[in-house]
Amino acid sequence: MEKLSNEALRAFRREADDRYKAFVARGVCLDLSRGNPAPEQLDLSRELLNAASDGDYLTSDGIDCRGYNGGVLGISEARHLFAPLLGATPDQVMASGNSSLALMHDALTFAYLHGVPGGSGAWHKAEQQTAFLCPAPGYDRHFRICETLGIRMIPVPMQADGPDMDVVEELAADPTVRGMWSVPQYSNPTGVTYSEEVVRRIAAMQTGAPDFRVFWDNAYAVHDLNETEQERVASLIEACMQAGHADRPFVFASTSKITLPGAGVAFFASSEANLSWFCHHVNRRTIGPNKINQLRHVRFLGDLDGINAHMSRHRALLKPKFDAVLSTLDEHLGGKDVARWTNPRGGYFINIDLHGGGARRVASLALDAGIRLTPAGATFPYGDDPADQNLRIGPSGGTVEALRTAAEGLSLSILLAAADGHLARRASALVA
Amino acid sequence: MEKLSNEALRAFRREADDRYKAFVARGVCLDLSRGNPAPEQLDLSRELLNAASDGDYLTSDGIDCRGYNGGVLGISEARHLFAPLLGATPDQVMASGNSSLALMHDALTFAYLHGVPGGSGAWHKAEQQTAFLCPAPGYDRHFRICETLGIRMIPVPMQADGPDMDVVEELAADPTVRGMWSVPQYSNPTGVTYSEEVVRRIAAMQTGAPDFRVFWDNAYAVHDLNETEQERVASLIEACMQAGHADRPFVFASTSKITLPGAGVAFFASSEANLSWFCHHVNRRTIGPNKINQLRHVRFLGDLDGINAHMSRHRALLKPKFDAVLSTLDEHLGGKDVARWTNPRGGYFINIDLHGGGARRVASLALDAGIRLTPAGATFPYGDDPADQNLRIGPSGGTVEALRTAAEGLSLSILLAAADGHLARRASALVA
Repeated sequence: MEKLSNEALRAFRREADDRYKAFVARGVCLDLSRGNPAPEQLDLSRELLNAASDGDYLTSDGIDCRGYNGGVLGISEARHLFAPLLGATPDQVMASGNSSLALMHDALTFAYLHGVPGGSGAWHKAEQQTAFLCPAPGYDRHFRICETLGIRMIPVPMQADGPDMDVVEELAADPTVRGMWSVPQYSNPTGVTYSEEVVRRIAAMQTGAPDFRVFWDNAYAVHDLNETEQERVASLIEACMQAGHADRPFVFASTSKITLPGAGVAFFASSEANLSWFCHHVNRRTIGPNKINQLRHVRFLGDLDGINAHMSRHRALLKPKFDAVLSTLDEHLGGKDVARWTNPRGGYFINIDLHGGGARRVASLALDAGIRLTPAGATFPYGDDPADQNLRIGPSGGTVEALRTAAEGLSLSILLAAADGHLARRASALVA
Repeated sequence: MEKLSNEALRAFRREADDRYKAFVARGVCLDLSRGNPAPEQLDLSRELLNAASDGDYLTSDGIDCRGYNGGVLGISEARHLFAPLLGATPDQVMASGNSSLALMHDALTFAYLHGVPGGSGAWHKAEQQTAFLCPAPGYDRHFRICETLGIRMIPVPMQADGPDMDVVEELAADPTVRGMWSVPQYSNPTGVTYSEEVVRRIAAMQTGAPDFRVFWDNAYAVHDLNETEQERVASLIEACMQAGHADRPFVFASTSKITLPGAGVAFFASSEANLSWFCHHVNRRTIGPNKINQLRHVRFLGDLDGINAHMSRHRALLKPKFDAVLSTLDEHLGGKDVARWTNPRGGYFINIDLHGGGARRVASLALDAGIRLTPAGATFPYGDDPADQNLRIGPSGGTVEALRTAAEGLSLSILLAAADGHLARRASALVA
């Protein structure tokens, strides 16, 4: 578009506008804003709802999952089954309720109120405001927890192999920087899996704060979109132990996108000292998690092979949706030099970066055309995408056909915004 | 015992010691420390585990309970069904996860970190330490949340109709006193139900803090032990609205002792402003509760008649256990003037107050005899029972026969400790 004459650009703009308006007239309606598994995916776990139902509620160590007993660590079977997904040993794992976000919220809140092992006390009592490193684009709900607690967020650029570690290492030397968010595999939203070298550097780096914690949200631990090229992030727990920083990682995962988003099981894994610290505080809050639901999960999924077989059924439903969106973007935007987008090997998102900015405009145009995207900026701390270029789309909901339509509408919105952007830049260059 | 001669008292002591030692030799083992429903009670909810299992997971308003959607308020059916137990209207109710303690912890933590509607900000930023009124004896886990947050606890004596309201009103005039714990019906551990007058005074009293909150844990809302003499506490929400203090109550309840302690549903109810405040903060923590479990509860219990019928089945199992303990206490301690105990019309506990103190000694003697009681003192803030006189026993676990045995061992422990106490007091009187 850069190379078009003014006349050609205006013609391009007119055509884009016509096509966009024709699309709006079709009156479509689709929500791409969240990573919502489709009903067909939920149906894959139908038998989960019947598992461990009929008198069959004792754990292997004799705990009656219906009662109060058993404590806050969750049932042994669940801790064993999911430990590999957390890069942990079973004794390092807590199995909890239905939300890993809640575990992250609570871990950060407990740290804020009471401090963590190896630290000098409650983070909120520190002389200077606590700060967190936030690889961006990232997950908006992580950032919102920091915002709620008044923890200062420092964005760190995401690269193809994880966050820019030169930047991370430099910033982490500041003693007020006490933590870092990470979605280390099939990252939300970029789809990036942290390389071994990045994991090693995170584990090994010298931090200014002795109580630095990495919040490692391995939300997509087994969520491959590609059957043959599966990516697996290295265990942060192992890497940190080897580097002599055993207490650095707080690892989280859940079955929200393995079984049921509303009725899954969430996990926390960490060093002995951290797990004991977390149990202490969780035990002030509750007598224990819903163990029946944990037992249902173990009975339903069985073992790691069972999890893998189950995930392949998700993949069979998800892959055609991602492909439909990607081929539609290719068709409409290929060679136009207006944006680049990811073709992720796993996870739930396609990440789009607009070359000339204008993400807010695109999201607004798309919304007018009936397509809801994640609000532009949401993937950055404080909702502030400095280049206004990042768009996250979650192509899991809706049918393949509806997604193709939505991707077309999105493409037309991008083309129109790009043409407008170019025209505006040329106009202001003329004025200047 | 007061009136016995020294010789007779020593003889009494010898006999008590012999009987206690003979009991210890029997090697019994029973835990009376917690209000744990017995397995037979859990079996009453067997069909809960199958409810809403087979394709039947849509709410009346079309929410798929398996997914992320629906928000943090929980499903409409559950809010409607349980609103009467909370003395609330359905729109004032949040249906949540499996733990009402967690809701209390979170509500207090959010108040501490961020403040509540009508207040002047976060409680932890107040110039003077926030304090809570703690009717005592009360529930140890309430007190522990305050202790964790560094909220100063002020004990208030419990009377036959609720807390001593003269004391409450006087203390509540202090602006640093921002709240009060209550188990208002079949109270833990005294079995007391607050009178209408007490509820009215709590609702109407002038408080020094404009953001005073009553944490109203109606844990035993339908948990009658007596079929004909059912006690029902007045609605605090209604009383506070009438008194012009609509934002004063935070009401909690759960199905832990209706269905399953480990896999129930917990509830929060309050004014529109408070509920909106709570939702805002809960939504930072999680996308939503396990709605499948809520739907199971609604399908299983049906309506209020269903809940009442279900509770009558609990009563049929529980009443003989309470009776066995009470008749054994009567048999061994009746007329001995060593203790008084409650005969509660509902709830999960028998409360024993020892006339001459010595609760710690009795708990220790009982433990040596294989009977675990709630730690002496636990029912008071900071674990400090100033008269060392209160013992809480939960007679729901174990068989009727085992409970009779345990009550015998407890009685013998009380008699021995009482004799020792009297002898010690006479000895020190001689010295002085």
